[in-house]
Amino acid sequence: MPDTPATNHPIPPRQTARTRASDALLEPLQAHIRQLDAFLLAQVNEFEPAVRHLVTYTLTHHGKRLRPALVFYAGWTDNSPPQPELVRAAAIVELVHLATLIHDDILDNAGLRHNTPTLATRHGPHTAVLLGDALFAHALTLAASYPTTDICHHVATTTRQVCSGEIHQNAESGNTRLTLGQYYRIIRLKTAELFELSCRLGAHLATNDPAYTDACARHGRHLGTAYQILDDITDFAGNETGTGKTLGTDLANGKYTLPVLLHLGQLPASDATALGNALAQGTMTPAQLAQRLSTAGIPAQCQRIFHEEITHAQNALAPYAATPAAAHLHSLTLYLHEQLHRLDFA
Amino acid sequence: MPDTPATNHPIPPRQTARTRASDALLEPLQAHIRQLDAFLLAQVNEFEPAVRHLVTYTLTHHGKRLRPALVFYAGWTDNSPPQPELVRAAAIVELVHLATLIHDDILDNAGLRHNTPTLATRHGPHTAVLLGDALFAHALTLAASYPTTDICHHVATTTRQVCSGEIHQNAESGNTRLTLGQYYRIIRLKTAELFELSCRLGAHLATNDPAYTDACARHGRHLGTAYQILDDITDFAGNETGTGKTLGTDLANGKYTLPVLLHLGQLPASDATALGNALAQGTMTPAQLAQRLSTAGIPAQCQRIFHEEITHAQNALAPYAATPAAAHLHSLTLYLHEQLHRLDFA
Repeated sequence: MPDTPATNHPIPPRQTARTRASDALLEPLQAHIRQLDAFLLAQVNEFEPAVRHLVTYTLTHHGKRLRPALVFYAGWTDNSPPQPELVRAAAIVELVHLATLIHDDILDNAGLRHNTPTLATRHGPHTAVLLGDALFAHALTLAASYPTTDICHHVATTTRQVCSGEIHQNAESGNTRLTLGQYYRIIRLKTAELFELSCRLGAHLATNDPAYTDACARHGRHLGTAYQILDDITDFAGNETGTGKTLGTDLANGKYTLPVLLHLGQLPASDATALGNALAQGTMTPAQLAQRLSTAGIPAQCQRIFHEEITHAQNALAPYAATPAAAHLHSLTLYLHEQLHRLDFA
Repeated sequence: MPDTPATNHPIPPRQTARTRASDALLEPLQAHIRQLDAFLLAQVNEFEPAVRHLVTYTLTHHGKRLRPALVFYAGWTDNSPPQPELVRAAAIVELVHLATLIHDDILDNAGLRHNTPTLATRHGPHTAVLLGDALFAHALTLAASYPTTDICHHVATTTRQVCSGEIHQNAESGNTRLTLGQYYRIIRLKTAELFELSCRLGAHLATNDPAYTDACARHGRHLGTAYQILDDITDFAGNETGTGKTLGTDLANGKYTLPVLLHLGQLPASDATALGNALAQGTMTPAQLAQRLSTAGIPAQCQRIFHEEITHAQNALAPYAATPAAAHLHSLTLYLHEQLHRLDFA
């Protein structure tokens, strides 16, 4: 597929109900996000000229900057301007995230991301594979610019785990007998690890306090798990305008997540087989499935599991409850909580 | 595509004329390569259980270990056993190389690599994208285990450049008006950078001598350029048994390389357009094209350019000609030289 010509006028991301809600949440981070955006755009010139328009396209069609927010909030010490080493760490986790999104979108055959065409749709899957690689590599180049190798080590191992989670998920595609244990392992790897890394880097760079850093990392892990559960539910209970995602994508790709797995596990064997077949043959729409899950009481069970993760995330920071950092991180848990209750899933 | 089950009995790579010639070349490195193989296989357990059989498959279907040989030879100091930090560096460059091969094979739709099915053929392109990512990430994890961040920095920037070169090449796919300048830039990035890195790491780790390290890096850059020119010629002048490559792949993918570009540049405009159209429409076989190039005297021109790069590579090490390291690196240039003259391209 031919590449479209470079644009000198990056298109700003379209505003949606969900991004507006997160704008309020990120209010205290305005200066931080501005610095992050400036830092990321300055990175474009580190790439080969032939690649720069692709990097610009990726950087200007971003999402909520949730992982950078974790870096900044976990590293929040006072109202002073954002420290350059935190801005760099925020850029690293965002680049890793963007690279994984680019590769995911190829694999999922998703056409939209953040309400704009994915890089794979616009520039072809070949270019998308390679650009994802280049963004990963650049994240590691930035990680190598800290005085010691810890940041590099954490970023590289996390990236490996994220990819391993995706491979694991891919290998189980179409498997309606996936266990909940396997499901939790997959979401831990593919999502929670990067949330954990974001919190870890922010805390470590700002405080160099191992106990606080570990507490933040634990917080991030549970928050990331809750976030992925929310995302999985959204696949068939949200709406495209509100989330910027192509809905039903997981289901269409044979990616069975918490609601479906809970339901399948609670059905008599013959009913589970019948439902499994209907899902595999694509004879059931996401809306029909949502109706069936609702009748079976699955939404309430998902909400309970989600709340448990949110509670674990909050508890991890209990010893630091009086700090502004913990208060900010707490606000993120409340934001996710709100998002869940806005969904049409009950 | 479903994954095939893990094998507990890795299949050894098939022997070919070309690998046998390189076996002799690598004779002085037998202990080094054994340690490298053991080190690489020990890395399998660093990956998630769901991924390990894929890593094993990749590691056991390798090629000539040419980049590790550069690490070991550039870092050659005496006949003492291979140093662990050199073995690790050799593993890093090999993992980066294997990851790029996995991604290349998806993009090129190549069915064979080293005479065995590619990972993409066997396990599907989705898994291949992600496994490549995981191998890149693991290479960086290993790079982060040195005391300082230099190795990480060099490995990450090289990886970014390699991917940028591939993107550049991909963007120019089907372009029969590619300039020689663009061609050289692409092969510098996609191939020569990793040869340069291999020599740089070996020299730096063994000697910590900046002048020698820079000389080795320059040597690697020119050797890598020569190697890619050889590889490009082989695409239509070799034979599948001898190289383990699916021939005509570059041409079929609209990847126009030195021989074709030289020829197109020397034809009258109307003839160049006619040949360009024939290539684009796939109405000319690699054998027919080779015949035409031969008549036009292109092979001799390619050989001259190849020899220039080999000479630059040798000259870079002239101040160190008396050292065993330079003698070993010199033997690699002679090996490439021999390979060129074995091809049916005159």
